Amino acid sequence: MDGVDQLAPERKKAQFDVDEMKIVWAGSRHAFQVSDRIARLVASDPAFCKDNRAMLSRKELFKNTLRKAAYAWKRIIELRLSEEEASMLRSSVDEPAFTDLHWGMFVPAIKGQGTDEQHQKWLPLAYKMEIIGCYAQTELGHGSNVQGLETTATFDPQTDEFVIHSPTLTSSKWWPGGLGKASTHAVVYARLITDGQDHGVNGFIVQLRSLEDHSPLPGITIGDIGMKFGNGAYNTMDNGVLRFEHVRIPRNQMLMRVSQVTREGKYVQSNVPRQLLYGTMVYVRQTIVADASCALSRAVCIATRYSAVRRQFGSKNGGPETQVIDYKTQQNRLFPLLASAYAFRFVGEWLKWLYTDVTQRLQANDFSTLPEAHACTAGLKSLTTTATADGIEECRKLCGGHGYLCSSGLPELFAVYVPACTYEGDNIVLLLQVARFLMKTVSQLGSGNMPVGTTTYMGRAEQLMQCHCGVQKAEDWLNPSAILEAFEARAIRMSVACAQNLSKFTNQEEGFAELAADLVEAAVAHCQLIVVSKFIEKLQQDIPGKGVKPILEILCNIYALHLVHKHLGDFVSTGCITAKQASLANEQLRSLYSQVRPNAIALVDAFNYTDHYLGSVLGRYDGNVYPKLYEEAWKDPLNDSVVPDGYHEYIRPLLKQQLRNARL
Amino acid sequence: MDGVDQLAPERKKAQFDVDEMKIVWAGSRHAFQVSDRIARLVASDPAFCKDNRAMLSRKELFKNTLRKAAYAWKRIIELRLSEEEASMLRSSVDEPAFTDLHWGMFVPAIKGQGTDEQHQKWLPLAYKMEIIGCYAQTELGHGSNVQGLETTATFDPQTDEFVIHSPTLTSSKWWPGGLGKASTHAVVYARLITDGQDHGVNGFIVQLRSLEDHSPLPGITIGDIGMKFGNGAYNTMDNGVLRFEHVRIPRNQMLMRVSQVTREGKYVQSNVPRQLLYGTMVYVRQTIVADASCALSRAVCIATRYSAVRRQFGSKNGGPETQVIDYKTQQNRLFPLLASAYAFRFVGEWLKWLYTDVTQRLQANDFSTLPEAHACTAGLKSLTTTATADGIEECRKLCGGHGYLCSSGLPELFAVYVPACTYEGDNIVLLLQVARFLMKTVSQLGSGNMPVGTTTYMGRAEQLMQCHCGVQKAEDWLNPSAILEAFEARAIRMSVACAQNLSKFTNQEEGFAELAADLVEAAVAHCQLIVVSKFIEKLQQDIPGKGVKPILEILCNIYALHLVHKHLGDFVSTGCITAKQASLANEQLRSLYSQVRPNAIALVDAFNYTDHYLGSVLGRYDGNVYPKLYEEAWKDPLNDSVVPDGYHEYIRPLLKQQLRNARL
Repeated sequence: MDGVDQLAPERKKAQFDVDEMKIVWAGSRHAFQVSDRIARLVASDPAFCKDNRAMLSRKELFKNTLRKAAYAWKRIIELRLSEEEASMLRSSVDEPAFTDLHWGMFVPAIKGQGTDEQHQKWLPLAYKMEIIGCYAQTELGHGSNVQGLETTATFDPQTDEFVIHSPTLTSSKWWPGGLGKASTHAVVYARLITDGQDHGVNGFIVQLRSLEDHSPLPGITIGDIGMKFGNGAYNTMDNGVLRFEHVRIPRNQMLMRVSQVTREGKYVQSNVPRQLLYGTMVYVRQTIVADASCALSRAVCIATRYSAVRRQFGSKNGGPETQVIDYKTQQNRLFPLLASAYAFRFVGEWLKWLYTDVTQRLQANDFSTLPEAHACTAGLKSLTTTATADGIEECRKLCGGHGYLCSSGLPELFAVYVPACTYEGDNIVLLLQVARFLMKTVSQLGSGNMPVGTTTYMGRAEQLMQCHCGVQKAEDWLNPSAILEAFEARAIRMSVACAQNLSKFTNQEEGFAELAADLVEAAVAHCQLIVVSKFIEKLQQDIPGKGVKPILEILCNIYALHLVHKHLGDFVSTGCITAKQASLANEQLRSLYSQVRPNAIALVDAFNYTDHYLGSVLGRYDGNVYPKLYEEAWKDPLNDSVVPDGYHEYIRPLLKQQLRNARL
Repeated sequence: MDGVDQLAPERKKAQFDVDEMKIVWAGSRHAFQVSDRIARLVASDPAFCKDNRAMLSRKELFKNTLRKAAYAWKRIIELRLSEEEASMLRSSVDEPAFTDLHWGMFVPAIKGQGTDEQHQKWLPLAYKMEIIGCYAQTELGHGSNVQGLETTATFDPQTDEFVIHSPTLTSSKWWPGGLGKASTHAVVYARLITDGQDHGVNGFIVQLRSLEDHSPLPGITIGDIGMKFGNGAYNTMDNGVLRFEHVRIPRNQMLMRVSQVTREGKYVQSNVPRQLLYGTMVYVRQTIVADASCALSRAVCIATRYSAVRRQFGSKNGGPETQVIDYKTQQNRLFPLLASAYAFRFVGEWLKWLYTDVTQRLQANDFSTLPEAHACTAGLKSLTTTATADGIEECRKLCGGHGYLCSSGLPELFAVYVPACTYEGDNIVLLLQVARFLMKTVSQLGSGNMPVGTTTYMGRAEQLMQCHCGVQKAEDWLNPSAILEAFEARAIRMSVACAQNLSKFTNQEEGFAELAADLVEAAVAHCQLIVVSKFIEKLQQDIPGKGVKPILEILCNIYALHLVHKHLGDFVSTGCITAKQASLANEQLRSLYSQVRPNAIALVDAFNYTDHYLGSVLGRYDGNVYPKLYEEAWKDPLNDSVVPDGYHEYIRPLLKQQLRNARL
């Protein structure tokens, strides 16, 4: 059966131009071409094979990752890849490695927080990888609360040095990727202390290991923090622990763009606005949202293809059973995730624009949109990563028993993805930040301070508090303005209700703590509105390609209406829609599922993932699932011998009733 | 800090007698004593240590499981443990092994489906473990749909044998635990064919391996299906693949209690009612519900203790930060899971009673309650396993970053638990069965056929379709009858709405397929009602112990009211409660959280889990989390050397810019 495309009949059903959709998904023809070329390059190079990752021991796994990272760098140099191509190559290799932190955190931290002089000294070293850097912020006892970090950097004016020290066990740096085994340097966050005074947390460039033999420098204790969730997954990464015993670094290794310590030990704030630092946060979170659409779409691609291959029940007269993708229960779980993958892709694209916009404004000293942009990215990071983590696991369940096999690719995808819900801001903590911003916006309504950006709708609070949804028949739910109004009304009503409840507390902070769960829900409602509205905006643009726009409209409606159903309590109890309208939304949703069905395979083909990248027997492009599952099984080390290791010691004595005398 | 109980201040806060609660949790003083004694026995025996499980390679892991299984059996014999104690010991060892299938599936299958003669021949062999058996039902291409199995058992009247054969690749047996490497025998399910006629699926006892050297018998291909989700977890189990090439077994190895094949090859149905087989299903699913409460309570125990240890934000004047368990967002996620653990425990206890009741009725040829009991256990299996799988992952997230470490115990707990959502009936398929039963019940209302058991409330449909919730202030929600009525009204209204929508279809099956997603939701509403009502019934009994009943009442209310909030759309859109009442429920919920807070640690102590069983640094009884996390990290194989294996080949050439010439 090799070489036969089992899914060809499904592909023939598609009602849109899948090649054009690939461009839409990639964002541009150029982006498509780069990613397509690099992904094929990686997929065709056996050095990047990842088939046996789940079976390797920790040490083998890590060594293999070191090999791949070095090899990837070698290829990047040999092929003279551009920065864009190099980054695409690293992501196509699809294996967390110390280089992610080097390029993704160490270099940007120096760029963002270092002075020009520091740039000149450190960036060339980093760019050539003559040093390997990581980002040492979180500590054993301190994660979300950066201001609670305990590591100290005490200025010694006598030697013009900082003394970096870990005063307690809980101050041990803990989690930084690349720290455990690979990095030679780190940006270390520590409390800056001059003349006995604590100036809060600052970044410092600290060399950790000898560049000659990689041994830790004096005063530095360093190691890996141990196994993490899943097979393969993040165990390719050396998340590390790090302790300092009065380690001295020159004064000029404090990152001094925003604040400085002078030769005399004076703490000085520069005239560089601190807000500039938030720009970086917007950038990082935007990439996280893009990654969410990527991870979710992988899972959806696997589950969709396998749902078309898998048949169960419904055989008539001994004919084939029904494809599970034809069951409404399967569609009802799968298609909203398919729609979410597209929705997150487009909101991620928009965030890229937002980052450019914010950057330009910051350069022009315009900080007016920053709080809104900050709240918006925080909320979208939270929303998309939570939905993606849940969605991957749902896709695994949609693959039934076989989804539990590592060869399905889904267990590793889940395990490697879930940290996104915690890093760069715990998702609940972030939603509380959004809620705080919303409460502030509500409190300023009517003050003449008009809400901007994604909160513009709150300026129409009066109207939205009273509007009635006009939907009278199921098709009315296809109207974008009906959807938008329902989401806007729900969001503002939930925010206003929270604000009213808050106002009953004499102590605002107490009220905020007490009502935190409600506030989180109001923040979610606001963020869902953003995703829905950006999807709708995307569809207002010109989108070429036969049938491309119509099918995207269907996905947009599915995304919105499945949320209406999922959060029905919000919509109905705030009076935004009636029970009858809710039931019409459900009816419309079912009809949309039927419209997606023939296009489902083509919609996941449009992600343009190679079989190498998917890493899933169930999600193979050709649908040739069963023979390959069977083939994969025999590769397990347990199958090296027919009679298992341990038979003579533990099984035979049991069967032969000779256990009493056995030494176990 | 070793030996100091960091959580002692928390334990002092408890307002109830934790020792009495332990009895309530265990079900009886006797059950408590047995489980306590056996759990300590296992915990104190270094042979049962499971600390390094996440780090072992597949082969080491499996061999280690063989050792533990043999050792456990040895101890069971040496200590002359009763069946109850032996089963408790196996579950305390807490490692999936071939013995689970031998005792849990192979023996019961023979008992339930074998004749007296077959019992006499096979059971003594199995009881002494002179043979090791497994349960070979599912196939590569066939899971939920048992009637779709392809393996054939063709009777050959010439030799008085069955010929067992795997006619296709998809007919390969796939998944059976214990099959891959350990079992000598299997109960194999295959299509019985006599004289060219297919009589559907029957069970057959088939020897797979030589009892002398464990090699597979002629015509049998057998192996392990490969790595599964997670570190440790189910990778201790040899889930297997099995193919038959015309394998012959004597006729008397067909399990013949319900139907027989005579010497002449005639297929005969016995007078044993087929319904008897459903009794086994009720039994197995009852144990799954009990396991759900066990798995969920473990996760909740870990998350609760760690939430009391972990502090983040809220430091005042340099004092300690706030315990995260004091945050309402944490309580809002954690306490409903704590309440669910207790709820599932009690509904599991009730299911045990139901099984006894059903068995007694079956013996008296009374099949009247069987359909209801069957629907009820199917639904509860689905409900509790889904909630538990999601709940474990939520607990992991509640532990922040550290929950991602294997040493937290949560990744393995999740990975080992999730198959429960798929095996013994996929959870969605089961809910559709429940829905089918509910639709039938609705259609018979008014026919004089009064609904029984857990559907009794449907007999009051008329009243429940019209009732109005009487809650006027938050405390009114503490009234069990208010809660019960709201859940009953919601369940019946959702069922009736489905039935009405179904009636619009001319083809009932088409309607059922089209409305499947709604039907699933109606089934969930019904099942949640069962759990709530059994919790309430439990509290109507006499429960001794200071403060025990009051705190259970609080948990019961939390369980019910968090469901009201979670499924608000159901309750409000069916008109069971108003938006105002929903908001009062929320208010009441917050106040209940505050009442649970001081009792939280004691409530998880009542599960009486040893540190061995919990297997979590975060969940340690003494709360001594950070030093132990630090200690655990150094045990990772990667920390065997300071400079990692691979440095010379892959890191040094990179740093020294010598990659071009390196062979990678």
